[in-house]
Amino acid sequence: MQVSFTAAEIAAIVQPVSTRGVTTETIRGLAALTDAGPGDLSFLGNARYKPEVAGTRASLVLLPPNFSGAPSANQLFLIVENPSVALARVCARIELLLSPTPTPGIHPSAVVANGARIAASASVGPLCVIEAGAVVGERCHLQAQVFVGRDAVIGDDCWLMPGVILAARCELGRRVRLQPGVVIGSDGFGYEFTQGRHEKVPQVGNVVIGDDVEIGANSTLDRARFSRTVIGEGTKIDNLVQIAHNVIIGKHCLLCSQVGISGSTTLEDYVVLGGQAGLGGHITIGKGAKAGGQAGITSDVPAGTFVNGTPAIPFQLERRIAILHQRLPELFKQVDALERQVAPK
Amino acid sequence: MQVSFTAAEIAAIVQPVSTRGVTTETIRGLAALTDAGPGDLSFLGNARYKPEVAGTRASLVLLPPNFSGAPSANQLFLIVENPSVALARVCARIELLLSPTPTPGIHPSAVVANGARIAASASVGPLCVIEAGAVVGERCHLQAQVFVGRDAVIGDDCWLMPGVILAARCELGRRVRLQPGVVIGSDGFGYEFTQGRHEKVPQVGNVVIGDDVEIGANSTLDRARFSRTVIGEGTKIDNLVQIAHNVIIGKHCLLCSQVGISGSTTLEDYVVLGGQAGLGGHITIGKGAKAGGQAGITSDVPAGTFVNGTPAIPFQLERRIAILHQRLPELFKQVDALERQVAPK
Amino acid sequence: MQVSFTAAEIAAIVQPVSTRGVTTETIRGLAALTDAGPGDLSFLGNARYKPEVAGTRASLVLLPPNFSGAPSANQLFLIVENPSVALARVCARIELLLSPTPTPGIHPSAVVANGARIAASASVGPLCVIEAGAVVGERCHLQAQVFVGRDAVIGDDCWLMPGVILAARCELGRRVRLQPGVVIGSDGFGYEFTQGRHEKVPQVGNVVIGDDVEIGANSTLDRARFSRTVIGEGTKIDNLVQIAHNVIIGKHCLLCSQVGISGSTTLEDYVVLGGQAGLGGHITIGKGAKAGGQAGITSDVPAGTFVNGTPAIPFQLERRIAILHQRLPELFKQVDALERQVAPK
Repeated sequence: MQVSFTAAEIAAIVQPVSTRGVTTETIRGLAALTDAGPGDLSFLGNARYKPEVAGTRASLVLLPPNFSGAPSANQLFLIVENPSVALARVCARIELLLSPTPTPGIHPSAVVANGARIAASASVGPLCVIEAGAVVGERCHLQAQVFVGRDAVIGDDCWLMPGVILAARCELGRRVRLQPGVVIGSDGFGYEFTQGRHEKVPQVGNVVIGDDVEIGANSTLDRARFSRTVIGEGTKIDNLVQIAHNVIIGKHCLLCSQVGISGSTTLEDYVVLGGQAGLGGHITIGKGAKAGGQAGITSDVPAGTFVNGTPAIPFQLERRIAILHQRLPELFKQVDALERQVAPK
Repeated sequence: MQVSFTAAEIAAIVQPVSTRGVTTETIRGLAALTDAGPGDLSFLGNARYKPEVAGTRASLVLLPPNFSGAPSANQLFLIVENPSVALARVCARIELLLSPTPTPGIHPSAVVANGARIAASASVGPLCVIEAGAVVGERCHLQAQVFVGRDAVIGDDCWLMPGVILAARCELGRRVRLQPGVVIGSDGFGYEFTQGRHEKVPQVGNVVIGDDVEIGANSTLDRARFSRTVIGEGTKIDNLVQIAHNVIIGKHCLLCSQVGISGSTTLEDYVVLGGQAGLGGHITIGKGAKAGGQAGITSDVPAGTFVNGTPAIPFQLERRIAILHQRLPELFKQVDALERQVAPK
Repeated sequence: MQVSFTAAEIAAIVQPVSTRGVTTETIRGLAALTDAGPGDLSFLGNARYKPEVAGTRASLVLLPPNFSGAPSANQLFLIVENPSVALARVCARIELLLSPTPTPGIHPSAVVANGARIAASASVGPLCVIEAGAVVGERCHLQAQVFVGRDAVIGDDCWLMPGVILAARCELGRRVRLQPGVVIGSDGFGYEFTQGRHEKVPQVGNVVIGDDVEIGANSTLDRARFSRTVIGEGTKIDNLVQIAHNVIIGKHCLLCSQVGISGSTTLEDYVVLGGQAGLGGHITIGKGAKAGGQAGITSDVPAGTFVNGTPAIPFQLERRIAILHQRLPELFKQVDALERQVAPK
């Protein structure tokens, strides 16, 4: 990163409630407490790393209100409400420096069909393809090699990174961010088995994505058989996630990488799914429910519960059983001993 | 969807065995029984939703021969052999309207090497790349940004969606449909460990895909070390599936999303693998065998069996053991109680 | 494959320690022992296939020093130190014939920003996009439709296959090979939950990849929150693998397909992860440790150990418990019988 901030500039960004110490260093990098050196900004994001603050060589450290230590020489502590949030603000400023706002306009190498409507403030990068009837909103950034299918609609302020594919008739809300290689609107996996063959059930619905959704690299979201596959406002989806046709996902959910959700399943708001969790079809995950990594869920999960394992059961019970599972060798021995005692041969 | 059918047009498509009632509505949408309103077509695809027919507001409902209810006012029942198949026919008609047949020809922005042979009836869309020696069959549709490598062969009537990559020397049969982002012909994962390093074993085989195969978005199929990786006629593969080198898949198999198959494994015909199932290498899955979601299969599976779990065992046994597994806390208590009874302290 | 070698040419490639028999056939293909016919080269790579040598119809067979059989008529045995390595050498020669070295230069359809530095010996294929400040090293091959972001750096002799996306500021060492559709430098999955919403934590770090790394099709590697996500020299990663932000992977590791590694986890050198294994965040996998397919790892793994299962435990123990797990029905019956004996009703 070629960035450079004075301590005063960082303070202006994070708005500390108080400060301790002083540094004359220019801040040129970010680093974890133990990795940082002079010229680095660091932070205490998790209380368990508190002992590392004393030894850090960072010039500037973001710390929570209850932190009591003193800085070393040429070191400045900025006491902030929430060091992680403060760091995120610094990173947001750095991101702006690193990724300047693109110039509006359509790159001459892009192929835009007649009848596509591109807002004047939008930027369509090199080698994008936009089919007829598509709509691209204000200040959108289609970075490069993006595909936008017939009659697809993109709301304002979206960022589609290189290689994103938004297929025909699918719709994005505002401020949607699609990481590279995301596919939205592939056909749902639907067949009728007749006369020894799987005959395709045409998938004529679409995918509708709410405001402020982010989707990770190479994830795939299938269009509905008919009607809509839906991702609710504010939901964040990690890389290599599979969303089948007619899935309905609520608002502000978190889906970690490699999660797979089968057809017609519903997630209510604020659901969190750990990495590689797999969900069967036609089930409902209640509001605020959580599932551990690799969980296999084949029936409804009540709101507010935390499940784990395959088949998924309440987390505490699953942990308890997992421990007993590892004691099976001992249990078999106990039972053998009992049998010998009860009926000695 | 901007579609519009009269009830008579729908009847002409689905060829009902009988009808009940009448509607004057124009059909402009499809919806599930409980979601439908006037102007919608709905259907009874699964007997368990039968009670919903009475209350549906759909103007037109596809129903099975054994359905006995009567339509409400301005509602038409079409009694058909198989409502799901009938609906698929309607959807196929809608799909044709939504995705008009592309005009033959090569888009001026496509890069086609000298020596590639493109059928005159084929359509090569914007920003495709076709390398030397490749063959594209009659009526093929390479939608946009597709890559076709050196000496690859595409049979008649294939549809390659945006971003598909068909690497050198791989072969597609007829009517193959590749969803966006599919990669066919990546190198197999083969190395020899010598002198502390993994030395690459060149992968010089190819991938051969039969007629009527469909492959889901961002799935990856590796070329053989030598000889061929094979996908049999009529097999359907969902999104984000991994097929390793030298895998042989039979005809009419179904592989759900995120399945992974290791090298040199064979699937006979009509195998069905649930989502996220993982298969070890060098094993054979017999004809018509099935595996549940997330199953982990490391040895041969006999034809016609249904396996589940990791390691996978027969489904009924796995279900029974899974239930006993959840009773482990109780079992440990029983054994402790027995020990106290047998040898009281 | 349109290849053709005389037996003498093959011998010159593999440098046999001795030979038996003679063949007049021209070698035009490679095949497994049982599949091979006249004109094929075959090999004994694994001792368990030794009985198949006697019946093979291959014209030329690569065999290990301790092999004692005699060739049939018009058949040549080449005795070599390591038949697999010898075969790999033949395949490497075939690969050169099949994939000729590309001509240096920038294809006229590629879009290269002012200020990108492309070595004169590099080849930038059709419809690639290279942003400002990027550096492409000597003899690199960007095959087609590749994206290289702002200030990204590619070392000498790299091969980026079609559809690869290397995002801004990420760095490749020398001789890195990226299979089609690989995404390097997508944003890490980081959010702060505030006022009922997940606020994005900008991800301003990068990904740094060492020499001789290979990454499989459609795999995704996230950039660090700040600092670097690192892949060590000589590590090989299969298809559809997910590497989260701030992961550090050592040298000469093997990650099989569909593995997922959560944020800030460290793999030391020579780690091997089976397909679909999932690793939690902030843990360390010690040098030379191995994990079985579908393993779920949520805590540190000591160097040199082999773990399996979810949660992962030492392999031998996991196998033993898995067998006992399948004997649970029997155990429940034993305990019931004991209860009846001890306290008969």
